[in-house]
Amino acid sequence: MLFLVRMDVNIPADMPEEKAAAIKATEKAYSQNLQREGKWVSIWRVVGEYANYSVFNAESNDELHEMLSGLPLFPYMDIEVIPLAKHPSDIH
Amino acid sequence: MLFLVRMDVNIPADMPEEKAAAIKATEKAYSQNLQREGKWVSIWRVVGEYANYSVFNAESNDELHEMLSGLPLFPYMDIEVIPLAKHPSDIH
Amino acid sequence: MLFLVRMDVNIPADMPEEKAAAIKATEKAYSQNLQREGKWVSIWRVVGEYANYSVFNAESNDELHEMLSGLPLFPYMDIEVIPLAKHPSDIH
Amino acid sequence: MLFLVRMDVNIPADMPEEKAAAIKATEKAYSQNLQREGKWVSIWRVVGEYANYSVFNAESNDELHEMLSGLPLFPYMDIEVIPLAKHPSDIH
Amino acid sequence: MLFLVRMDVNIPADMPEEKAAAIKATEKAYSQNLQREGKWVSIWRVVGEYANYSVFNAESNDELHEMLSGLPLFPYMDIEVIPLAKHPSDIH
Amino acid sequence: MLFLVRMDVNIPADMPEEKAAAIKATEKAYSQNLQREGKWVSIWRVVGEYANYSVFNAESNDELHEMLSGLPLFPYMDIEVIPLAKHPSDIH
Amino acid sequence: MLFLVRMDVNIPADMPEEKAAAIKATEKAYSQNLQREGKWVSIWRVVGEYANYSVFNAESNDELHEMLSGLPLFPYMDIEVIPLAKHPSDIH
Amino acid sequence: MLFLVRMDVNIPADMPEEKAAAIKATEKAYSQNLQREGKWVSIWRVVGEYANYSVFNAESNDELHEMLSGLPLFPYMDIEVIPLAKHPSDIH
Amino acid sequence: MLFLVRMDVNIPADMPEEKAAAIKATEKAYSQNLQREGKWVSIWRVVGEYANYSVFNAESNDELHEMLSGLPLFPYMDIEVIPLAKHPSDIH
Amino acid sequence: MLFLVRMDVNIPADMPEEKAAAIKATEKAYSQNLQREGKWVSIWRVVGEYANYSVFNAESNDELHEMLSGLPLFPYMDIEVIPLAKHPSDIH
Repeated sequence: MLFLVRMDVNIPADMPEEKAAAIKATEKAYSQNLQREGKWVSIWRVVGEYANYSVFNAESNDELHEMLSGLPLFPYMDIEVIPLAKHPSDIH
Repeated sequence: MLFLVRMDVNIPADMPEEKAAAIKATEKAYSQNLQREGKWVSIWRVVGEYANYSVFNAESNDELHEMLSGLPLFPYMDIEVIPLAKHPSDIH
Repeated sequence: MLFLVRMDVNIPADMPEEKAAAIKATEKAYSQNLQREGKWVSIWRVVGEYANYSVFNAESNDELHEMLSGLPLFPYMDIEVIPLAKHPSDIH
Repeated sequence: MLFLVRMDVNIPADMPEEKAAAIKATEKAYSQNLQREGKWVSIWRVVGEYANYSVFNAESNDELHEMLSGLPLFPYMDIEVIPLAKHPSDIH
Repeated sequence: MLFLVRMDVNIPADMPEEKAAAIKATEKAYSQNLQREGKWVSIWRVVGEYANYSVFNAESNDELHEMLSGLPLFPYMDIEVIPLAKHPSDIH
Repeated sequence: MLFLVRMDVNIPADMPEEKAAAIKATEKAYSQNLQREGKWVSIWRVVGEYANYSVFNAESNDELHEMLSGLPLFPYMDIEVIPLAKHPSDIH
Repeated sequence: MLFLVRMDVNIPADMPEEKAAAIKATEKAYSQNLQREGKWVSIWRVVGEYANYSVFNAESNDELHEMLSGLPLFPYMDIEVIPLAKHPSDIH
Repeated sequence: MLFLVRMDVNIPADMPEEKAAAIKATEKAYSQNLQREGKWVSIWRVVGEYANYSVFNAESNDELHEMLSGLPLFPYMDIEVIPLAKHPSDIH
Repeated sequence: MLFLVRMDVNIPADMPEEKAAAIKATEKAYSQNLQREGKWVSIWRVVGEYANYSVFNAESNDELHEMLSGLPLFPYMDIEVIPLAKHPSDIH
Repeated sequence: MLFLVRMDVNIPADMPEEKAAAIKATEKAYSQNLQREGKWVSIWRVVGEYANYSVFNAESNDELHEMLSGLPLFPYMDIEVIPLAKHPSDIH
């Protein structure tokens, strides 16, 4: 079951650089683990913004929320979730 | 070069049903041709709406506009285009 | 899996009254069938508006879209879907 | 008398973690008390957000405001209240 | 129990003038009846707009919805309802 | 001459509690004086929000601005003013 | 007492040209009368839009509403009214 | 003096095709004349929309409004005008 | 050449009072100089807000930007500029 | 391939002036380098705002994102990107 997710990152300007770097490193590992498991299907940078659009494959809303709220950057993100269904013109 | 595209369809309520059906059939063929060519990479229905999110792979902005403005349903659509870049956490 | 759904109904002013009445009757039966099946868990009128908030229980995004796009009033509705997850304070 | 309530939580980034944890614990107890009394009928997490949709059953607007403004997290919340009425298609 | 209600009226441009005049006359009588019963406490014109702000006194959300959805102009109105509570500074 | 006024209060999270309490006490006295003078006709709490809707009776725009900008909480408020006129259906 | 007023004109596309021309001529005369009386202090075209910003001098909200609702184009306008007060830096 | 202008075109769905084609041809000639005169400096299509962003060089606000309101498609356009000034980093 | 300008002032809550008072005094002098030169034609307070609507008379967009960006309160303001043209109904 | 880009700058009020000046100097050099390379085609100040509209010429979305995210002021900017295509009326 697919979901389109937009994440906008807003790290407070007064966060020490090392702390920010550490969170971002953890975030990257967290994301790549989920990508390898096939849960985080796609991730693209929004041009010109500290934001991404992603596609998630989740068994349920609960699983999706668990993945998203577990993001190391979650406290600094605005997240929008759009549930997707099969499109009748899709050839796949 | 990838673009996320959202299309919202608003067919006028007074369009004759046959005309609407004909446009939709042409639209489907048009979409599936571009999917087969690898230009229209993904298409998903937005749950509960007569709308889709799609990913396009275009050589240029001009090519993307040509594909979108050529849609049989183009006169009845609101379209939003979001240019995408490679995300540093993407494992692909 | 639960979803909160808001539906705003906009029937064109020039639709003949009998046609509107017929669609509304079909809509009511359709809704009550899904309620009896336990799919359409709750439905409330938004005070002062021709709109409702509803809770749906669906196996998947696809099933939810099928239920919503099958609504007799679907062509005349604006629908917003909010995926819900279990809340940690929920006692049920 | 039912009300749909959306609560978005925004805890200041510089609040000490213990203070935040204490408020959240009090909030949870407060919520569960009202749930046990049948006043706070439902609570769901909005997927991907530090937010919830809830249904309250209140005798009056005053009682509802008292319950909401008494929330330990109230100073850090944006709250939206939507009064609900019985829907003519509701089978309950 | 008080509610602030804003009503914006949008009569279709192609409604025959007599029909519009008849609906407005019925609307006026309907409003004045509710005012006399003490249900429709206040009504003010928004300066420069075909709109009003009103205060209603209702026993319940259901009663309020019944009053509002019974307005002869209801099909041509956008209505917003804001539930009101007693303010601690109120001297009345 | 009547005006509908909405006030949203946003006290900075780092204001010392005693200072906040003192401002709120002054605000209450200020409001009640104007209520006794018949200038501040009504004040209602917006359910679930640190906000109010009020009706003011002012001789002029200048007088209204003087009353509003003199509010002890004025620096911490977002205020919206809607000029009201007599409604033709008003029975008073 | 001054008010800033923005008027956006939306004449239906299917109004016969003569009717539109007649309304516009009446509108112009109406506006110029109020300008000569000193009630309609200023009128400017918004560049690129069928819209104007105007300053009115009215004795009261009621008088302003009477002037605005009497505009021949009133049924085809969206009007926004902003009450103005004397600015402390104003040298006049 | 430069202005950025966005134009969104909304031709009514029931306009006869020949009439639409005639207006568009006149529009194109009108635009190209102003381009040749150096008044309409740039025109770009917004990808995926029946809209353009343009840069105009006008002597005054009045001249700009004259050019824009003279557009054959003006009655069917939403136009937004953003006045531009020299940027201190501009090397030209 | 006239421009309508709206300025919303947001002075940070933690600015020392003397500094704020000093900036405001400089701002007042700056504004009154431009008023005396006939550049800042009108200034009105928006009732209930720390904001003003003003009319400027500038030779060019560049001159207007120089005047606005030179405002002592410029770093603490949100400014909106609306270019104005002569209105055909204007009698002046 | 052209893109219209709007950048709004929001430097935190508590950034030391020297630091801000240093970033702005680096920003200016960065911008002028890209202008000399023909990548940053145009840059205009938005009148009355700490913002600019720019036109970029990029080989790809990735190149554009690299240029924008490399801006020294990037962490303090809101950036909007609009992909542009050739307009059929363009004479160039």
